[in-house]
Amino acid sequence: MLYVVGLGLGDERGVTVRGLDAVRRCARVYMEAHTALLALAVDDHPSSRLAKLEKLYGKEVVIVAGREMVDGEDRSDRILREATGADVAFLVIGHPFGSDEPSGKTTHTDLVLRAKKLRVGVKVIDSASVLNAVGACGLQLHRYGEAITVPFFTETCKRDHFYQAIVNNRWLGLHTLCLLDIHVKGPVSEYLCRGNKAYEPPRFMTVNTAISQLLEVLEMRGEPEPAYDEDSLCIGVARLGSDDEKIVAGPMGKLIDLDFGPPPHCLVIVGETTLVEEEMLEFYMIK
Amino acid sequence: MLYVVGLGLGDERGVTVRGLDAVRRCARVYMEAHTALLALAVDDHPSSRLAKLEKLYGKEVVIVAGREMVDGEDRSDRILREATGADVAFLVIGHPFGSDEPSGKTTHTDLVLRAKKLRVGVKVIDSASVLNAVGACGLQLHRYGEAITVPFFTETCKRDHFYQAIVNNRWLGLHTLCLLDIHVKGPVSEYLCRGNKAYEPPRFMTVNTAISQLLEVLEMRGEPEPAYDEDSLCIGVARLGSDDEKIVAGPMGKLIDLDFGPPPHCLVIVGETTLVEEEMLEFYMIK
Repeated sequence: MLYVVGLGLGDERGVTVRGLDAVRRCARVYMEAHTALLALAVDDHPSSRLAKLEKLYGKEVVIVAGREMVDGEDRSDRILREATGADVAFLVIGHPFGSDEPSGKTTHTDLVLRAKKLRVGVKVIDSASVLNAVGACGLQLHRYGEAITVPFFTETCKRDHFYQAIVNNRWLGLHTLCLLDIHVKGPVSEYLCRGNKAYEPPRFMTVNTAISQLLEVLEMRGEPEPAYDEDSLCIGVARLGSDDEKIVAGPMGKLIDLDFGPPPHCLVIVGETTLVEEEMLEFYMIK
Repeated sequence: MLYVVGLGLGDERGVTVRGLDAVRRCARVYMEAHTALLALAVDDHPSSRLAKLEKLYGKEVVIVAGREMVDGEDRSDRILREATGADVAFLVIGHPFGSDEPSGKTTHTDLVLRAKKLRVGVKVIDSASVLNAVGACGLQLHRYGEAITVPFFTETCKRDHFYQAIVNNRWLGLHTLCLLDIHVKGPVSEYLCRGNKAYEPPRFMTVNTAISQLLEVLEMRGEPEPAYDEDSLCIGVARLGSDDEKIVAGPMGKLIDLDFGPPPHCLVIVGETTLVEEEMLEFYMIK
């Protein structure tokens, strides 16, 4: 059986009791290198975070690259084959199908899909993800529209394909959750060899960069009636689910200059609000 | 400190390790009666489920009615006052701000809001909820629009206020998560006195009733271009996150007759799909 286990948010204690039981029972525990880099590199060197995780789980965690070839065979196929004869765990940040990791979500769906095609038993173990934990900022979760991902702009590439979803959500009075891009340099698996001093942490987009890019999109498009502007109410969220979570609400033009501290960050563009939502937002409003 | 702890999905093992640590550390553990009835009554008598929960948590769980008056004081105020001098846990099904419990979500937001107003320290501990666990059915979570709740129709009251959200989501090509109503009779706290033989289980809406009502809405409205019909692709989901989770995709007209077994159920109206989503749906397609 292949257990795809959501690690939830914050530190290693975001896993559920059900997930922990499964991991402890498994013969082998895997984590995809890209995931590992994001999960483990937030405020520390990956290897020390990994050690904490392994201590709680009571298992060595084997880090693999999603499409790494081993002896001419795709590593994931090898994991799936292993899971036909034994219990194997595959660890995922947040929820296995969450959008916590914009570039990772297809990998995990793909793994489950391939397991099903090969008739390997697969069990997904849920946990929290940004998609529900963002409820902490006080807006009702069922009043969010389509979630978007804001990608890093470069000099030559400024993709603003997400703009229409914001337009739609605003038009419907819904809130927009903006997931923020993460840039990982080079072949990540190399960084994760334990003791590798050449480790280069990934670059997480901040609330500030996200807002700056969102405003740049308006200039680029020259919209006569933009979906938002510097006065639009937003909520900047950092380290959701951690002990030092930071949530601040305010107009884009003010949040752009606020220091939210270490990653990960996300941003919410506020739609129409109810009285209860407004009361909750008051507690997070920038002074 | 008041800990509002999400219990996640399935059985008592849906809580996170962080949540379990907090509950075990707390001087008192509370659960709102309405929540308790839903969390504990799914496939068993509440008292036996409660016993399992208490065994894992190593604590007695005190069941309180949200607005129960005790010696002329609102019970929640008493809990909040208690939380100024000690660690107190308040257990919630799914995610504290999830929509797992249509009628309960305001209660929990309200409790957090009142804690903040009284300057009582409050910490929300995330867990999975229908909103992210529904990813199991294979549709990408960020491609869902506004979530709706389908209420039980009665002879005299057939509220179809949710219809417009389905129209909007369909128009945008987004999926719609339909949370299904739960009907609880009378003052629930009475049922939960331990050993009470007069316990009456809540009535959970099935996928079948939901579809039947959705189709009835079309007749009532006489829409020339309905947002869905008997041929619309849907996914019926039962007991999400449990070991006996059931997921079946198919046209509304076919799912309406399928037995999904014990509650809780939810329903997804499928929007535009990607190739990966279609491949995943194939595995759940009704024969």
